[in-house]
Amino acid sequence: MQEYDIIIIGAGPAGLTAAMYCARAKMKTLIIGDMVPGGQTMLTDRIENYPGFESISGMDLMMNMYKQVEKLNVLIVTKKATEILQDENGFIIKTKTENFKALAVIIATGATYKHLGVKGEKEFGGRGVSYCGVCDAPFFKDKEIAIIGGGDTAVYEAVYLLKFASKLHIIHRRDRLRATKIMQDKVLQNPKTKVHWESVLEEIAGNRTVESIRIKNVKTEESTEVKVDGVFIFVGINPLSDIAKEIVTIDNKGYVLTDQQMHTSCKGVFACGDVRSKILRQVSTAVGEAATAAFSAQQYVEKMKGEAYI
Amino acid sequence: MQEYDIIIIGAGPAGLTAAMYCARAKMKTLIIGDMVPGGQTMLTDRIENYPGFESISGMDLMMNMYKQVEKLNVLIVTKKATEILQDENGFIIKTKTENFKALAVIIATGATYKHLGVKGEKEFGGRGVSYCGVCDAPFFKDKEIAIIGGGDTAVYEAVYLLKFASKLHIIHRRDRLRATKIMQDKVLQNPKTKVHWESVLEEIAGNRTVESIRIKNVKTEESTEVKVDGVFIFVGINPLSDIAKEIVTIDNKGYVLTDQQMHTSCKGVFACGDVRSKILRQVSTAVGEAATAAFSAQQYVEKMKGEAYI
Repeated sequence: MQEYDIIIIGAGPAGLTAAMYCARAKMKTLIIGDMVPGGQTMLTDRIENYPGFESISGMDLMMNMYKQVEKLNVLIVTKKATEILQDENGFIIKTKTENFKALAVIIATGATYKHLGVKGEKEFGGRGVSYCGVCDAPFFKDKEIAIIGGGDTAVYEAVYLLKFASKLHIIHRRDRLRATKIMQDKVLQNPKTKVHWESVLEEIAGNRTVESIRIKNVKTEESTEVKVDGVFIFVGINPLSDIAKEIVTIDNKGYVLTDQQMHTSCKGVFACGDVRSKILRQVSTAVGEAATAAFSAQQYVEKMKGEAYI
Repeated sequence: MQEYDIIIIGAGPAGLTAAMYCARAKMKTLIIGDMVPGGQTMLTDRIENYPGFESISGMDLMMNMYKQVEKLNVLIVTKKATEILQDENGFIIKTKTENFKALAVIIATGATYKHLGVKGEKEFGGRGVSYCGVCDAPFFKDKEIAIIGGGDTAVYEAVYLLKFASKLHIIHRRDRLRATKIMQDKVLQNPKTKVHWESVLEEIAGNRTVESIRIKNVKTEESTEVKVDGVFIFVGINPLSDIAKEIVTIDNKGYVLTDQQMHTSCKGVFACGDVRSKILRQVSTAVGEAATAAFSAQQYVEKMKGEAYI
């Protein structure tokens, strides 16, 4: 079995940054990622809030990070890690075909936004379809947009998006919103808001970018076309913590709990990026946490090897 | 008096990133920085561990961040903030000539490495003279370097730098090291180490980059020249927390304490970057914390204005 100092699970911004810091600290480092390096960020058309780039595509940013890691000769294997087992002085990471051993593990498996699965959603992802207001709102300044969902997040994001959009359509399956009254009032009393009650999204259409949506009233079964430049889908987010939850403590939404140094509840296991329990999921926060997780993991490995940090 | 939603004190990577996130969230934002935007990072010749850039000068990276902020029409005033006063529903930031009012404050004042003040130190800063092993060690692979200092940090950094350097000179004023025995052994038993006991640095010399140092034995008063490519100075680091310590809790070294959401002990005051109490001071960690601090400050301001986050 191949043995490493540190194994990083996940190859998005957090995983790649952690690998860079581990490799620079001369740790024998392996990344196990279950898809092409880059993670969710690969699906983002433009990023304008990562410090250092006025505007960059998610793919270009991730290619840059990938090259930085590649230059340091870090091995990246494309496999799905299925289990983390603890043995006497380290961990065994299982995949379907092969197992790997390490003194420390960094979990950077990320999260995915829940999708509706409607026609056009995947096609226009990053080109008018978004799952994150903080990330994409400024792209829709003075434009007409739709929000899908009526939960707390949807209503909070509506308040945020109303600062940018010229008109905001809320498409909600039920006949009332679930969020706190004060938030509802803010959204419903804004003249830019139009709520389509008891309605669901059927299709997103356009050419290169989103141009319209078709919605259906669930009572009357009537379909309507609404011209919009953007669609924000707020129907939930899934932490990819299946592999983590067997070995570390997670919160009630499934995110991994850590302290400020990115230690989890299991000694020798660290976490960073979208899979962590935290308030803001961004490339910027992922890389900061990843650098810290790598530093903590390095200290842990040195201690295990008798090269203790003071 | 000019009134803002959020005032950010400091214009380094943390301050600029916080400003970008605040401005994107449509907060009325002001940066008060006491020197040219960019902070300490401006003095760094090459940065190779900020995710997204294989290699970039500190100045270029900070110019990029500055442009990102400028594009969002954030006002940056170059003044020294001297005091943060709390009034009934916000804060007043005093400078020598003018006062500013805000609902929330983000402290991003940074830290500075202590300097020795010897000849050549300033001149070769970022060109062979460094204050941070994690930042710069890989630039000195297979090269001869000197460490100034004999405290815990110096000895820990020595262990780290020994992974890279072909030879390591330790220049220490006393006749023994202060660090824990196990760390001392690691350094002293390494054949690459040569300790110059009871010695002080007198001068750093070179052409474009460092080529040699002159050291003096404090007992014999004899001066010696040592050929080195790099000099790491580990004589301490000063958090720039003078303005913070009157209003928020600091740790025993003077760094500002925060929780994971970057709240300080004073409601409405947030902190991020090098001035924070934490384990790793890097551009990557500064920007992550800054994004989070900005998000927390935004939530706080919206609550103050009755636009509460749920």
